[in-house]
Amino acid sequence: MMKTVIEHVLACLYDIGIHDVFGVAGDYAFPIEDAICESENMRWIGNCNELNASYAADGYARIKGCAALSTTFGVGELSALNGIAGSYAEHLPIFHLVGMPASGVQKNHRLVHHTLGNGNFDVFYKMSQHISCAHAILTPENCIAETKRLITTALNERRPVYIGIPSDYAVMPVVTDKNTDAITMHKSNSESLSAAVTAILEKLNSSKKACLIPGILSARLGYANDVQKIIDKTGLPYATMFMDKSIVSESNATYMGIYNGKLMNPKVGEFVESCDCIIGIGAELTDFNSGSFTATIQPENRINILADHVKVGSAVYPQVYMKDILEQLKQHAPSLQHQGIKAEGLGEPIQGDDGKITATYLYPRLEKMFREDDIIIAETGTASMGLGFARLPRNAQFHNQTLWGSIGWATPAAFGAAIAAPNRRVILITGEGSHQLTAQEISQFARFGLKPIVLVLNNDGYLIERLLCNNPEAYYNDLPKWNYAQLPEALGCQDWHCVQVTTCDELNTAISIAESIDTASYIEIVMDRYAASELAQKLGKSRGSLYSF
Amino acid sequence: MMKTVIEHVLACLYDIGIHDVFGVAGDYAFPIEDAICESENMRWIGNCNELNASYAADGYARIKGCAALSTTFGVGELSALNGIAGSYAEHLPIFHLVGMPASGVQKNHRLVHHTLGNGNFDVFYKMSQHISCAHAILTPENCIAETKRLITTALNERRPVYIGIPSDYAVMPVVTDKNTDAITMHKSNSESLSAAVTAILEKLNSSKKACLIPGILSARLGYANDVQKIIDKTGLPYATMFMDKSIVSESNATYMGIYNGKLMNPKVGEFVESCDCIIGIGAELTDFNSGSFTATIQPENRINILADHVKVGSAVYPQVYMKDILEQLKQHAPSLQHQGIKAEGLGEPIQGDDGKITATYLYPRLEKMFREDDIIIAETGTASMGLGFARLPRNAQFHNQTLWGSIGWATPAAFGAAIAAPNRRVILITGEGSHQLTAQEISQFARFGLKPIVLVLNNDGYLIERLLCNNPEAYYNDLPKWNYAQLPEALGCQDWHCVQVTTCDELNTAISIAESIDTASYIEIVMDRYAASELAQKLGKSRGSLYSF
Repeated sequence: MMKTVIEHVLACLYDIGIHDVFGVAGDYAFPIEDAICESENMRWIGNCNELNASYAADGYARIKGCAALSTTFGVGELSALNGIAGSYAEHLPIFHLVGMPASGVQKNHRLVHHTLGNGNFDVFYKMSQHISCAHAILTPENCIAETKRLITTALNERRPVYIGIPSDYAVMPVVTDKNTDAITMHKSNSESLSAAVTAILEKLNSSKKACLIPGILSARLGYANDVQKIIDKTGLPYATMFMDKSIVSESNATYMGIYNGKLMNPKVGEFVESCDCIIGIGAELTDFNSGSFTATIQPENRINILADHVKVGSAVYPQVYMKDILEQLKQHAPSLQHQGIKAEGLGEPIQGDDGKITATYLYPRLEKMFREDDIIIAETGTASMGLGFARLPRNAQFHNQTLWGSIGWATPAAFGAAIAAPNRRVILITGEGSHQLTAQEISQFARFGLKPIVLVLNNDGYLIERLLCNNPEAYYNDLPKWNYAQLPEALGCQDWHCVQVTTCDELNTAISIAESIDTASYIEIVMDRYAASELAQKLGKSRGSLYSF
Repeated sequence: MMKTVIEHVLACLYDIGIHDVFGVAGDYAFPIEDAICESENMRWIGNCNELNASYAADGYARIKGCAALSTTFGVGELSALNGIAGSYAEHLPIFHLVGMPASGVQKNHRLVHHTLGNGNFDVFYKMSQHISCAHAILTPENCIAETKRLITTALNERRPVYIGIPSDYAVMPVVTDKNTDAITMHKSNSESLSAAVTAILEKLNSSKKACLIPGILSARLGYANDVQKIIDKTGLPYATMFMDKSIVSESNATYMGIYNGKLMNPKVGEFVESCDCIIGIGAELTDFNSGSFTATIQPENRINILADHVKVGSAVYPQVYMKDILEQLKQHAPSLQHQGIKAEGLGEPIQGDDGKITATYLYPRLEKMFREDDIIIAETGTASMGLGFARLPRNAQFHNQTLWGSIGWATPAAFGAAIAAPNRRVILITGEGSHQLTAQEISQFARFGLKPIVLVLNNDGYLIERLLCNNPEAYYNDLPKWNYAQLPEALGCQDWHCVQVTTCDELNTAISIAESIDTASYIEIVMDRYAASELAQKLGKSRGSLYSF
């Protein structure tokens, strides 16, 4: 029997590895959600709200490569926009399925709920187009071709797409399309590719001191293993920038650490900037990546391999896709074995006399806790800035929303990651201010039998803001005071290990328990009001340069 | 000394009655928030997240006429869009102050955080334009003129406006503008106004049976008292539709009840539809207002007074503003004293044998609880549908987001209303599913010393969705199970009266305590899975007509 429109869409999403759809049910989207719940292959993950759902989809896509989200018309889809925009900024393909009023309701401009009351049904579609790499409203006639186009674009560009489905069309059989080609990925122009490879190899072979800077885009496009192979073949030292942390191994011998311009890790910065050949692979010099624009790499020393083009010095090689150039480098890159510097971790935790949990204790202590295969989700703020410089064991992943930086992201993103990888240990680290934005999503871990370790850093306010604003004690940095350790139980997480710790000893005990029990942990870590990681402190001091350039 | 850009904006907002600004602080918006916190007149109300802030602003505007919201660039503003769109749909002027990166950062297309990483700084501004009646990005030069234009438009149209303020411009002195006229409201064309008045009076004077249908727009424009005076002068019977509930008194002798087409209150429907002159004053026939489009008023019997024009039968009188026409009717409308029908409330609570809390018990019981001056905030769903037909005491207000219908709105909106009217009793009624979307905002009541009565109806899932979808037991209607009565304490509401009730007796006890103590109450009311109000049940049965026209 012919599939319906929604059945066809779901089957295509399943084929690219999406087995779960996040969202909040709503009436215009019932046909979508009915099809998911009735499907043998797909699972509906009902979130507490749509923003949380979009963050959860983002987290899922970071693990599985792509994700799907379903919301209802107007009220639902708009709540998800911030999350979708974050996925756009950070190159994650999210399929946003929006249930729309029936085609006749739209055609007749009926004054129905979830509209602006003006008979206009394309206003939200237009809003989403700004943060989607492709968009369509499906009909039985265009469904096959458009679904293919949307998936192709999303996978090529690694960005969200918008799929609007009128509720009556959703359940109609698709009209067959003769064009049944498979999804195709971009292909390079062979001349341009060949020229780029030659230029890169020439530069590499004549280099006295080269290094690699693998970037997030290579991982998003699914080429992290290729990058690792190029590292191994060339034997070159490599660093990553903040946003790109852990996309390649941090335990290899030639790993140097995080490159953050002149702001942090000065040895790494000096080394990188003294190289005569610096190969970026999908890395971007944003404010946080560049240590507040303190990074200075001479253009003539720079090779930049991007999604769809390559730059060697000032020459641009267009229509060269990353996959193809990496294939060539895997085969032809020379073994150079240039000497780098050795990556340093955070060292030993330093405990003060009063036993309080300081930044110099906390982050090294957490570094020691991390194990192979951990998935670490760090919220934007002083916490992520502290952990970003920890050295991670093999296969441990560090996720942070460095560019978009929407506080509240981490809690639902950790849930999405846990859904995607239920057998891996998920560790969520968030400040309490950020946590308040989306804290209800904690309830979903318990509902789905997931067992994260949740660390909530409580320093009585938005600490990173205190450091960045003019008057640290301005009351807009204050928060309502919650009893965090009571929250999981109120949210239905019945058998969790929940505790507030205020001393290093208590923290150690709590971590030991978390590591020994077969249930989730939720640890509120009380710290001093200004107990900030080093990067956070430095950003605070350099804030003039961040805001006035 | 010359005011800065942000000081000028805040002074203008203060002049129109805005004394509080809701929002979440964020770095690009620090200059805005600094100015608020340093102002003697203004108060910063930091919400848990931006969506909640936008809902709170919506609730505040329902009480005070207008409201302000401040968010940071990108991440903050996008999270607020759903709430702003709701205020657009429901005619509430919200001033959305967005802190943008400094002008130089924008001009140089720097790759900074909270952007899409493409150097594009106007994308979010464009997205918001779809749900704003006016928008501007302020500079020291345009600040005075643009602020005036935005306020004028917002007050005339009663819709949100978008005010983007680059962080460097925010703190620069405004450049004086010669044009210092006051804010002007629209003025009617005098010929058109005179013709409309004549037509209305002719129709009224020749009517055998006339009635009035006051609508939300008259209240939003600030003319509820004028409408009440016209009711009193004409002595005509009147009804309101669902969205318009309580904008005029429900305790007057000529009030008939809620008109809901043929779906509910059949006596009211029969009376209204048998009149030969039905005067709508700012009322709209949306799906929920019209009883799923079962309302049938003959066009020749209809007079419709709208924001900027009047319809009498099929004649349209353009450029006639509501204020002017109401002024004329207050002076010249005849005393007709047509006989209407008497409004009925919900009657006595009916308790079953097992003592469980049924819909036929709950809603009449809550009706009895309502007092003069109460502000009742009812979440969209079976709860609002049950309470919408309760008859309210004098000056009690009922607020619901009938057209936009975004679940989660009610909890923060109740907080915003309580901030606006700290000396009135605020009663929040929400289903537990809706509550989960925005529940953290409960913590704000305690933080600001507010003492609401919160009623959370727990029927183990999204009940209105169970009624409206194909398979009530589809698992997308299920929720994580929270321990609601424990939630306020976890959220820092230390001395609240929190209780779960499962029987009518327990409910009565809980209400008695709530009425006798000087602290807030949070009552979880456990009901059967399908214990739905009558309207909710009927909508469930008529859902075919809702979704396929």
